[in-house]
Amino acid sequence: MKIERRWVISFAIISLICITGLFWPAVTSTDAILSQFGTLDHIVPADVAWMLTSCCLVLIMTPGLSFFYGGMVGKKNVISTMLQSFICMGVVTLIWVVVGFSLAFGEPLGITIGDGFYSFIGDPTSFTFMDYVGILPHKQIASTVPFMLFALFQMKFAVIAPAIITGSFAERVRFISYLLFICLFTIFIYAPLCHAVWYPTGILGSYFGVKDFAGGTVVHMSAGFAALAGVIVLGKRNNSSHVPTNIPFVLLGTGMLWFGWIGFNAGSSLEANGVAAMAFATTTTASAAAMLTWIFYDRLNGRKVSALGACIGAVVGLVSITPAAGYVSVPESMFFGFITAIVSNYLVHSSLLRKIDDTLDVFACHGVGGIMGMILTAIFAHGEDASLLHGGWSVFGHHMMALVLVSIFTFFGAYILFKITNRMIPMRVSEESEGVGLDISQHDETLFPIECTE
Amino acid sequence: MKIERRWVISFAIISLICITGLFWPAVTSTDAILSQFGTLDHIVPADVAWMLTSCCLVLIMTPGLSFFYGGMVGKKNVISTMLQSFICMGVVTLIWVVVGFSLAFGEPLGITIGDGFYSFIGDPTSFTFMDYVGILPHKQIASTVPFMLFALFQMKFAVIAPAIITGSFAERVRFISYLLFICLFTIFIYAPLCHAVWYPTGILGSYFGVKDFAGGTVVHMSAGFAALAGVIVLGKRNNSSHVPTNIPFVLLGTGMLWFGWIGFNAGSSLEANGVAAMAFATTTTASAAAMLTWIFYDRLNGRKVSALGACIGAVVGLVSITPAAGYVSVPESMFFGFITAIVSNYLVHSSLLRKIDDTLDVFACHGVGGIMGMILTAIFAHGEDASLLHGGWSVFGHHMMALVLVSIFTFFGAYILFKITNRMIPMRVSEESEGVGLDISQHDETLFPIECTE
Amino acid sequence: MKIERRWVISFAIISLICITGLFWPAVTSTDAILSQFGTLDHIVPADVAWMLTSCCLVLIMTPGLSFFYGGMVGKKNVISTMLQSFICMGVVTLIWVVVGFSLAFGEPLGITIGDGFYSFIGDPTSFTFMDYVGILPHKQIASTVPFMLFALFQMKFAVIAPAIITGSFAERVRFISYLLFICLFTIFIYAPLCHAVWYPTGILGSYFGVKDFAGGTVVHMSAGFAALAGVIVLGKRNNSSHVPTNIPFVLLGTGMLWFGWIGFNAGSSLEANGVAAMAFATTTTASAAAMLTWIFYDRLNGRKVSALGACIGAVVGLVSITPAAGYVSVPESMFFGFITAIVSNYLVHSSLLRKIDDTLDVFACHGVGGIMGMILTAIFAHGEDASLLHGGWSVFGHHMMALVLVSIFTFFGAYILFKITNRMIPMRVSEESEGVGLDISQHDETLFPIECTE
Repeated sequence: MKIERRWVISFAIISLICITGLFWPAVTSTDAILSQFGTLDHIVPADVAWMLTSCCLVLIMTPGLSFFYGGMVGKKNVISTMLQSFICMGVVTLIWVVVGFSLAFGEPLGITIGDGFYSFIGDPTSFTFMDYVGILPHKQIASTVPFMLFALFQMKFAVIAPAIITGSFAERVRFISYLLFICLFTIFIYAPLCHAVWYPTGILGSYFGVKDFAGGTVVHMSAGFAALAGVIVLGKRNNSSHVPTNIPFVLLGTGMLWFGWIGFNAGSSLEANGVAAMAFATTTTASAAAMLTWIFYDRLNGRKVSALGACIGAVVGLVSITPAAGYVSVPESMFFGFITAIVSNYLVHSSLLRKIDDTLDVFACHGVGGIMGMILTAIFAHGEDASLLHGGWSVFGHHMMALVLVSIFTFFGAYILFKITNRMIPMRVSEESEGVGLDISQHDETLFPIECTE
Repeated sequence: MKIERRWVISFAIISLICITGLFWPAVTSTDAILSQFGTLDHIVPADVAWMLTSCCLVLIMTPGLSFFYGGMVGKKNVISTMLQSFICMGVVTLIWVVVGFSLAFGEPLGITIGDGFYSFIGDPTSFTFMDYVGILPHKQIASTVPFMLFALFQMKFAVIAPAIITGSFAERVRFISYLLFICLFTIFIYAPLCHAVWYPTGILGSYFGVKDFAGGTVVHMSAGFAALAGVIVLGKRNNSSHVPTNIPFVLLGTGMLWFGWIGFNAGSSLEANGVAAMAFATTTTASAAAMLTWIFYDRLNGRKVSALGACIGAVVGLVSITPAAGYVSVPESMFFGFITAIVSNYLVHSSLLRKIDDTLDVFACHGVGGIMGMILTAIFAHGEDASLLHGGWSVFGHHMMALVLVSIFTFFGAYILFKITNRMIPMRVSEESEGVGLDISQHDETLFPIECTE
Repeated sequence: MKIERRWVISFAIISLICITGLFWPAVTSTDAILSQFGTLDHIVPADVAWMLTSCCLVLIMTPGLSFFYGGMVGKKNVISTMLQSFICMGVVTLIWVVVGFSLAFGEPLGITIGDGFYSFIGDPTSFTFMDYVGILPHKQIASTVPFMLFALFQMKFAVIAPAIITGSFAERVRFISYLLFICLFTIFIYAPLCHAVWYPTGILGSYFGVKDFAGGTVVHMSAGFAALAGVIVLGKRNNSSHVPTNIPFVLLGTGMLWFGWIGFNAGSSLEANGVAAMAFATTTTASAAAMLTWIFYDRLNGRKVSALGACIGAVVGLVSITPAAGYVSVPESMFFGFITAIVSNYLVHSSLLRKIDDTLDVFACHGVGGIMGMILTAIFAHGEDASLLHGGWSVFGHHMMALVLVSIFTFFGAYILFKITNRMIPMRVSEESEGVGLDISQHDETLFPIECTE
C-alpha cells in the first residue's frame, strides 16, 4: 500500500511537536509576565480539589459523547463516529498546549474603544508549550488555583467542542480531512471566541456584556453553527435513512455526559462554593425538565415515548442551561429546559431542517439549544445589568447583537474553514467508501466481527 | 394515532410546573425560617468540594443501575428496563424540587411523646420550588455546606430509590402507569420515611434510635418492599424464563454502581473527614467479601462461578453495609458482606421466592440486603447506645421494632399505591404487548435494528 | 455435579477470613506503634476531599480495564476476560486488608548498609485486618490525610496490577488457578516491590534512588513482566487468531482508564496542590501525544488508522508517564508519549514478540511502557540528583541497576509463582474447554444468549 504524503506530513508534525518541546528552552523569568501571577499563598486547596475533580468530569464527557453519537448512527459507522469524538482528546489537547491556550488566554490583542481596551484574541506566543503556566495562580483568572489547572479545565472544553460537531456530517467524512478541520476550528474559531467571551478584556464579555457561565455560547453555539456549515459543505448522504444502532450506548453516553456536565457547569464557578452548588442544581433541574418535556411533546405529536427522546431531551436541557447555570434560580432553570426542549423538538421534526442532512441533529440540539440558552440568559440572568429582567432592554439589545455576531462569525468562519479543508483534502469519502460504511473504509474495523470474519 | 388523555395531562403537568416556577414569587425574608440558617462563615470549602463530588457519584448510580438491570433482562425488554431507571432522573428530580424535599426536610409535623417532639413528615410548603434553599448552610443539617448542596445530595438518593424497584416487575409494566407510581412512591413512601429516619426530630431516628448511615433502610428496604408489593399486584409474567441479554452491561452497571456507591456511603458523612474515609473502607471490603462469598457459595451449590453472580454479590454487599458504613470497623464490614451474601443467595434460589416472579430478584437482594443490614447495624454499630453490642438488648429491641414498622409501612404503603395506580391506569401491559416485548410495544425501539430493519 | 475440593477450600477461606475478622480483638494501644501517627490537627480537609475522589477514580479503572481487554478478545472469551479483571476487586481487596498493606507499609524489615537502614518488606502483622489504620494520619506517609485513606488509595493500585496481567494469557487460563495466582502475586511480588519503592526506607527508593511517582515500576513493570512469565508458562493458544469482538467496549474502557488514571497520577501527589495539577497536565499530554503517534506510525507502516490503535496508543502513553507524572514538564511528557508509542508499536508488530502468544500485548504495552517510563524518568526527572539531566550519569546508573533488579525479580518471581500455581491446580484449561471458549466452559455464560437459547 502506498502511503499518501498527507500521512507522512501528519507523522512529521507530531514528531516535530514532541521533539521541539523537548528542546524548548526553560522559561527565563520575564517580570512583565510573571507579575500576572500570584503566590502560592493565594491557592485555596479546596478549590484545587474541586477543580481537579471538575477537570476529570469534563474529560469523561468526550468519551460520553462518543457513545451518545455512536449509538445513534447506522451500524456501519459506529466505530468511526466514536473515534471522531475520541481523537479530539489527542489532537485538540496538543494544539491547546502549543498555541490554543495562548490564543484564548494569552496577552490580549485588541483595540481601544473610548476609555476601554477590548481584545479579540490572545498573543499566540504567550504560553507556548505551557510556558509560565504552572503551579502559581493567575491574579485575574481563576485566582485561587494553579494556572495550569485552569488551563486544563479550559482544555477539556476545547476538546469537546469539535467533537460535538462530528454528529452533523457523520457517516460521510474523511478521517484525515476531519483531523485537519478540527485543528483549524480550534485555532480560528474556538480560541478567539473563547477569548472574546471569557478573557477579562474580551470584547464580547466586556464590551457587549455577554454572560456565558459555562460555555453555552463558546462551546455549544460555535459547535452548532460549525455543524450547520459542515453539513452544507459536505452535502447529504447518499442514503440518509438509518436506524440507531445501539440505544443502550446512547443511554450510556447520556449518563456520562450528564455526570460530566456537572463538572462543566458547577466547575465553572472555579471555586468549591455556593455558586457551584447552585449551578449544579440548575443544571440538574433544567435537564430533568427538558427530558420530560421532550418525551411528552413527542407523545402529543404522535410519536411514542422513547429512550432516544429522553436522552436527547436531557442533553438539550443541559445545553440550554449552560450559559446561565450560575446566574438563574432553580425554577427559572426548569423553564429553560422546558421551552428549549419544545423549540428543539419542533425543529428536529420540522421540514426546514429536514432539507439538510444533519445526521444527528447537531444544529437543532446544540446550535438551537445554545441560541435559546443565550437568549434566555439575556432575559433572566441575575446581577446588576445582567439581563432584560435585571437591567432592561438596552442590556438585552447588546446581548442580542452579540448573538448575531457570534452566529455570523461561527457559521461563516466554519464555512470558510470547511471550504479550505475541502480544497486541501476532499472532506467527503468516495461513494463506494460511504456505501460500505466508514468503519471498514476508513479504519478497517467493524462492529460485527462475527458476521464479517467467520 | 389518537392521543390518550393521560398524555395530554402529563404534558399539561410538566408545562404547569415549569411555567409556575417562573412566576414563583421571590422569597421574602421570613425570620422564622431564615433563623434556621447559618452564615457563609460556616461553610467549609473542602466539605463543599467533597459533597459536590459525592453528588456526582450518586448521580451516576442511576445510569449504572439501568445497565445493571438492562443487561439482565430478556432481549426484548432491555431498552424499556433501562429507560425505567433513567426516567427517574427526570421525574423524581422535579418532584423533589416541587414538594419532595419539603416533605423530607421541611418544618417537622409530628407529636409530642413525653418530653420529646417526634415528627413523621415535613411541611410540604416549607421549601416549595427550593425556596430558602440556597448557598447558606442549615444550622442543624449538613451545617458546613450550602443547604442546596444537601438538597441535591438527598435528591440523588430519592432518584435511585424508585429506579431500584423497577427490576421486580420488569418486562410487563406499562410506562405511563409506572411514571404515576414513582410520583406516588416518592411523595407517600420515600419522603416520609426519609424524614422519619434522618430529620433531627424524625420518629424513627430520634425515638426508636434507628441508625441508618447512608440509606440502607430509607432507600434499600423501602425499594425492596415496594418491589415485593409490585410483583404481587402485577402478577407473574406470561413467560418468566429469560436469559440475561448482555452480561458485559451487568458488569458495567456494577462498576458504575460500586464507583457511585462511594459517594453514597462516604458522602453520607457530609464532610471530607475521617468518617468518610472509614465509610469508604467498609463499603469496599463489605462488597469484596460479598462478591467472593456469593460465587464460592454458588459453586458449593452446584452452580458455576459466574460474572453475573460476582456482580449481584458485590451489589448485595454494598446494600448490606450501607446503613452501617460509618459505624463499624473494616473486619465487621467483611462479616456484613459475607453473611448477607449467603442469606440473599439462599433466598434467590429458594422455592419460597421462586413462587412470585420478581424478575431481577429485587426483594431478595435489596429488600433482604436492607433488612440484613439493618439487623447487623443494630447488632454492631459503634457508639453510645447504638446497638446490641454497644448498648444492649433494649436498644436492639427498639431497632427491631422499627424494622417491623418500616417493613409494614413500605410494603403495605406501596401495595396500596400500586392498587391506586392500577385503578387509574392499568399497570400491566396487554398480553400482546408483553409478547412482543416492552421495547417495541412501549417505545418503538429495539436492541436489534439490524434484524428488524433490513 | 461433584464439587471439587478446591472450591470447598475457597469457601472455607473466605468464611474463615470474614468470621475471624469479627472476633479480631480491638486494638489495644501500643505506644510504639501509635507514635507513628499524628493527630487530627494534621488532617487537611481539602487533601481528604481530593484523595477520596482519587480513590474513586482509581477504583473505576479496574472495570475500565475489563472493558479495554474484554472488547479486544475473541467473542467466546469476553465475559471470562472481563471477570478476571473484575474479580480482583474482591480478591486483592481482602488480601490487602488481611496482610497486603502490612507487607507493603508495615514495620520495615531490612538490612543496614553503611549508615543507612534499607528495607525489603513490611512486617505482615503490623496492620492485620487494618489494625491501627484509622482516621489519624501517619507522620511520614501521606501525613495530611487519614491513614485509612492512604491504605485505600494503595489498595486500588494493588487491585489493578494483577488485572493488567490477565490480558496476556486471556482465552486459556483456568479461573480458580488464576485466583490462586493473583493471591500469590499480590503477596510475593506486588507488596514487596511496593515497599521497596515507596516505603520511606524501601531499598529501591532510598538506596537506589528510584523515582516512581505513580507506579510505573510498581504497577506496570511488575504486571508486564508477570504477563510475560505467564504466557511462557501457559503456552500458546491452540488457535491464536482472533478478531476484537467489540471495539466500542475498548473505547469505553480507554475512556474509563483515562478518567481514572488522573486519580492514579494526580492523586499520587497525595495533596490537592500544584503538583497534582502538574501531574494531571503531563498525564493528559503524554497520552494525547502517544495516541496520535501510534495511529500515524501505524499508517506509515501500512496499517489503517484504527480506533483500536488510538486506544492502545493512549494507554501506552499513560503507562509511560506514570513514573514521571509529577517530575517532568508538559513538553517533556509529550516526548515520553511519543517515543514510547513508537517503541511499543514497533514491538507489538515485531516478529520477536510474535513468537510468544501474549494475547493482548500486555508485555509490549505495560511491560515495555513501564520500562520506557522508568528509563525516561531516570533521564528527565527534575529535582536534586533525580536523574541523568539533573544529577548525572551516576544517578542514572543507579536507576538502571534498579531497573535490571526489578525486571529480574518480577519476571522470575512471577515465573516461579506460575509454576507453583500450575503444580497445585493446572493453569491451563482443557483443549475442549479452550475450544468452546472460557465464557461457557468456566462460567456458563455467553455473550450471545440469542443464538444460544432460541
